[in-house]
Formats: sequence, C-alpha cells, structure tokens
Amino acid sequence: MMRAGPSQEEIRRHNLGVLLRHVHLGGPTSRAELTSLMGLNRSTIMALTADLTAAGLVREELPGDTGKAGRPSLVVRPETARVYVLAFEVGVDRLAAARIGLGGVILDRREAVREREPFDMGQIVGTLAGFARQMQRETRDDTVCVGAAAAFCGAVRKADGFVRIGPNIGAEEAPFGEELSRSIALGLPVSVGNDANLAALAEQTRGVGAGCRDLVYLHGDVGIGGGIVVNGQLLGGAGGYGGEIGHMVVNPDGRLCGCGSRGCLEAEVGERALLEHAGRYGEAVGRDGVRAVVDAADRGDVVAQDAMQRVGNYLGLGVGSLINVFNPEMVVFGGMLREIYLGSAAQVRSRIAAGTLVATREHVRLRTSALGDDATLMGAAELAFTRVLADPLEALSRLTP
Amino acid sequence: MMRAGPSQEEIRRHNLGVLLRHVHLGGPTSRAELTSLMGLNRSTIMALTADLTAAGLVREELPGDTGKAGRPSLVVRPETARVYVLAFEVGVDRLAAARIGLGGVILDRREAVREREPFDMGQIVGTLAGFARQMQRETRDDTVCVGAAAAFCGAVRKADGFVRIGPNIGAEEAPFGEELSRSIALGLPVSVGNDANLAALAEQTRGVGAGCRDLVYLHGDVGIGGGIVVNGQLLGGAGGYGGEIGHMVVNPDGRLCGCGSRGCLEAEVGERALLEHAGRYGEAVGRDGVRAVVDAADRGDVVAQDAMQRVGNYLGLGVGSLINVFNPEMVVFGGMLREIYLGSAAQVRSRIAAGTLVATREHVRLRTSALGDDATLMGAAELAFTRVLADPLEALSRLTP
Repeated sequence: MMRAGPSQEEIRRHNLGVLLRHVHLGGPTSRAELTSLMGLNRSTIMALTADLTAAGLVREELPGDTGKAGRPSLVVRPETARVYVLAFEVGVDRLAAARIGLGGVILDRREAVREREPFDMGQIVGTLAGFARQMQRETRDDTVCVGAAAAFCGAVRKADGFVRIGPNIGAEEAPFGEELSRSIALGLPVSVGNDANLAALAEQTRGVGAGCRDLVYLHGDVGIGGGIVVNGQLLGGAGGYGGEIGHMVVNPDGRLCGCGSRGCLEAEVGERALLEHAGRYGEAVGRDGVRAVVDAADRGDVVAQDAMQRVGNYLGLGVGSLINVFNPEMVVFGGMLREIYLGSAAQVRSRIAAGTLVATREHVRLRTSALGDDATLMGAAELAFTRVLADPLEALSRLTP
Repeated sequence: MMRAGPSQEEIRRHNLGVLLRHVHLGGPTSRAELTSLMGLNRSTIMALTADLTAAGLVREELPGDTGKAGRPSLVVRPETARVYVLAFEVGVDRLAAARIGLGGVILDRREAVREREPFDMGQIVGTLAGFARQMQRETRDDTVCVGAAAAFCGAVRKADGFVRIGPNIGAEEAPFGEELSRSIALGLPVSVGNDANLAALAEQTRGVGAGCRDLVYLHGDVGIGGGIVVNGQLLGGAGGYGGEIGHMVVNPDGRLCGCGSRGCLEAEVGERALLEHAGRYGEAVGRDGVRAVVDAADRGDVVAQDAMQRVGNYLGLGVGSLINVFNPEMVVFGGMLREIYLGSAAQVRSRIAAGTLVATREHVRLRTSALGDDATLMGAAELAFTRVLADPLEALSRLTP
C-alpha cells in the first residue's frame, strides 16, 4: 500500500507498457505525439520504440503524405497481425471464441449456439478448445499468442477462474478456468472474468465509455449483470465478485429470483419478467424473444407496452439507486438491455429523475453499448492483453518458444 | 492516465510522503522497520528521515529498553504536539471543532449542541470560526497548522466545499467552504467533505477497518449517509457525490423521503421511521430518541421491538444489496446506526443471508464503528492532512510564515 518509489529499470519497463498501451488503444501514433502524451523526451521515446520493435510488438513506418513540409515523424503501429490473444465467451445462449490482434482487431472468430440445457462443463470446454485449435491452425508461423481469457456468465473467482455460481446457465462451483487452461494447452493460464465485468471494461477502454473514469455498465442476458468502473478501475471487491447489480433488491415483495431472493433487479427486469408480463413466456426466448416484445410495443400492442413499462419502471429505479451510490459520468446499457432501454427510455429517465439527487445525476449520460454483441469478447481480449501491456518484455520472455 | 514514470526528485518527494504517512498512521516506527516496510536501503531511509526532521515533522529518539543486545535502531516519531490540523464537523445536532496532531491525536476540542432550527450558514460558520480562534490562541508559538477541513452532513462539491444539498439540516446550494475559509483566515483553504464519507475514511485509516481495501460504511444521523472504500480509495464518483447510499430505494412504495423520492434507505431506516414505528415521534429526538427505543425493545416493549424489526428488515435488505454490488471485506455501522444495528443484528443478518450471493457475502465482516462520535472529526483531520502527507516539504513551503 505504501511502497517506496520504483527503480530506473522498473520505470523503463513501466514506460514500455505505457507506450504499448497507447498504440494498442489509440492505434498508430507518431513519435511526436507519444513524446507529448508521455511527457518524455524524444530520445527516450526512440529507445522505448526500438525495444518494442525488436521484440516484434510494434513497427515504425513513414506516415502517408502529411501535407506538412519537413521530415515527418515516424508512426508507431501495433503488430496487429502478428501479436494476438485468444478470447472466449460462455453465455447462456452462445459459445464464442476469437483471435484478437494487438490494437483490438478481431482477426478470426468462431461461434456456436448453446441450447438451454443443463450445464455441461466438459462439453463447453471441448467446444471452446476446438475453436481455439481451428483458429491456431490457420495462423501464420511468425505470429505469437500473448494471452488468453474467457468471459463467463456467472460469479468467477479471480485467482483461478473457478466459477462460483452462474444461476442462469446452471453452473455451480465449477473449475472452469483450470479445465479450459488444460484443454487449450497454450503453456499459459486462461484468465476468466465475469461477462458483464469484461463487457464494461471493453466499453470503457474502446467503446462508448472510452475515457470515462466512473461508469456503470448494465448487461442484460437472461440475467442482469454489471460492471462498474470507479476512478478508472473495474470494481472487483474483496473476492473479485463485485458488480452483481442484478441482485440489488428493487422490489422486496417482488418476483422470485434465481439466486433465491425476491425482487432482485434481474427478477424484475430480466428476460423472463418481460416475456411473462407480455404473455409470451414459452414462445421465443433470448434476444429474439425480447425483440419480439419490443417490436410489438412499437407497433402499439397494449400488452407489450404495459410489459415494457413495468420493466422500465424497475430498470429506472435500479439505475437511480446506482446513480446515487456511484455518481457516474455514464450509464451504459448493453446486451439485451440495449433493446429494453431503447424501448422504455422515457419511463427509465422519468424514474431516474424522480429517484436521484440533483447532485448525483446532473452530469450523467445514459448510453447504449457501442460494441454490442462483441463487447464481452473484446473485454476478454483486454483481460488477456493485461500482462503484455503491464511489462511487455517480461511477458514475452515467459512464453514458451 | 497513462503518464510516464516519475523523475528522481518526484520519487524522493513521494518517499518523504510515504515515510511520513507510515509514522502518522502507525505511530513511532524504527528505522529498521521503515527500511523493511518501504523496501529501501538504510542510507535512503536515513536521508529521508533527516529531511523530515529538519522540517520539524518528525523526530528521532532512542527507543526504551528493547531487551535486545546491540545498538538499537532509532525510532521515528511524528511531531504530534507541534504539527496539527483543524477539523470541523457540522452535524444536524452538533457543531464541533478539534485540533488534531500529526499521528491522529486530538489535542483540543470544542463542541456545541445545534438546535433543529432552519439552516443559518452565517451562524454555523461563526461558531466554528470562534472555536478555531479559541484553540489557536492556546497553542504554543512553535506549532504549525498544516491544514483544515470540515465534515458536513450533505452533498458537497469537492472542488470548493460548496454544499449542494443537506436535506436533514435544511441546507441547499450554500457556499460553505468559501465562507468557512474566509472566516478561519488561516491562509489556506478549508477542504469540505461529506460527513459519512469522512467517517468512512477515518474508520478505514485508523478505526475498525484499518487495512481494509474494500469497505462499506453506513452512517446514521437523522439521515443515512455512506462512505465506500473501493480498492483502498474512497469512492467519489464523477463530481465527488458518490456514496449516497441513504438514497438507494429499498421499498418502492414506501415512506416519503426528504429527497422527494419514496422508500429510500434513509426513509425506511432513519431516525424518523424508527421513532414513528415506535409511536414516539415528537418525544426525544436524535441519539437520545433512538437510544430510548433500543432500550425499550431490550426491556421487552413489544411496540419498540416491532419498530426495531421493521427498521432492521430494511437495513438488512439495503446492506445485502450493497454486499452484492461491492463484495466488501467489511460493513461498518456508525453514528446512530451503531445502536440500531446492535439492537436488530439477528434481523439484519438473516436478511443479508437471504438476499446475497454466497460468493459476495462469504468473507464479509459486519462491525460497528470503533471511533464512535469522533469518526467524523477524525476523518476531517485525515482530509486536512492529505496535502502534507502527499508532498511534505512542498506543503510546508506553501504555508504563510
């Protein structure tokens, strides 16, 4: 907590990571811009860039015609096609995997529909590992995989990716991270995070919330998950299980929730509540089911409109409480909540106006996810890139050749 | 966000602050312990200590008999009697001020009961400034005031201590920080923070939550305030208004709240709810009124017991939601909530058990405030010490001689 200052070597390593992070998040950046962004002199930037180039993480190029006279500053680009991570997603309704290059570019992806059947970890791990093998086979020989991470729709122990509970997928106390690491067999562990947490991270690093220091992200799948960014950092809590905003109680005498409690945000706003209120439970499920209700309400179906209003009411109530607690710059609605919010925005906004202090809500912006269905995979990729961005050369030296 | 590493001089200044913070929070500490705590070599520690000694912030002494053979390591002590801050508190029922020495020792204090009358900023500032003058007159000539801060029972703008709203004291849009700074006339601004935020800071730095990285503190006055520590830092949010957990909705069709909403935690658990449920509203108010209900319930008064149970039910419900959102190591009940929690602990705990995920609650400890009624003043003192602990020599150089 109160460590002393770093050594010169630690500073160099830190600076290598900072520079790499700039080009990873900001794309091609000139040496001159890096000099100004990082507050370092030109020769230091040159030395750092040379180290990263030698490691194969970036390359330097002459920019296109800049229109200015004089010698142009070289542009530093991430080696997107060469340096990549594997990102995985376990959602209630889909399994997905992607190969994502430095700079956040999806190079390849695989996806399968998941049927709503009992949780079978072996089958899920097998599908994801199969995707990984297919994608790896198709990569060039000079590429390097610098990390792997998975997003899981449940509460996940940070240390080892052990799934504590995922009520909507039927998972409980499952050693998912360990199994996936073993099956992928990359020689490096697969990190695992909660899907909504990782989607929040993606929106805050390269989505609608880019640059926000304080952001609340709500993710609708079958359940409602959350990812909260406080002062630029994802809220983890003591065990890494923080952000379970789907299990805030918004209606103490309300609907039973999969967690065993009553009136949780998830129970009042989740897919099942919406479908039941609309009299459509048992018809289409998932995104299709939700879209059908939103569309019916748009077309003037009174039952669907009433369902949207009931759900919007509790959504606004829950978001209002979150605004009072977090005083965020932005609230982002992702996953299925994107549609629900867009279909009930007036209701949500009026509930927020009635239920929050002026001081906590006055500058808040309500937005929908910019990355859409890719948010979760992109967030898993950011988690997978963590190590190489923290200490690039050390991370590379650890990879098995 | 992505700054480059610090210079040698920045590192020295940082290390001076870190060392001072160690003795401020940990009390007298030997050079040997500092060497090990800070991960620096002995000569660096000697040089840092010499600088702080020359500045009059610490002194070095031979320890008492250590019982060990050999030359004992010198002990570094904070100059508690010489270096101090002024801390103020504006509560609904009291105005207080204290002179608090480096190391967190209350050297002097003044206090006045505040009647529940309309908000009169001039009168409050006058009383606090009078306390400050009295205490300053009685200090020795060689002392130095390194900061001042106030805790206010309302939502406060961080930048200038402007009070946005304090519903329970009747304050709205009041330039409290500016007025208090002008009246105290120390040549340095008086920082102002929310009382519950500052009490949380005090409990986390030197109270029951010392060392906790993730802590939720609930403060009961007339209203319910909160202070939340996330990863070691007080949650401020975009405008510094975060932590308003008293205005989380726990009962959407519930009691009207002073904020204009319905069923806020404050409306269901605050002083007024308890007194009304107990049929005692209009009798004693404040701490005395609350104690009377708790005592009556203890003695078997059925109406008082029912009131405690109703309030405990919503308290447990609200705390359960906070545990799911924050996954904290500890929840601390302070102010009047100390008594209410102790009088309804079984109810609160069973509500939490029913309303939280195992993963988010499994290691959480529920505790009452260790600093009691001093928490708020101690928190204001920590805020006032911020500058000298961040960069000791720079802070001293800015003081008017």
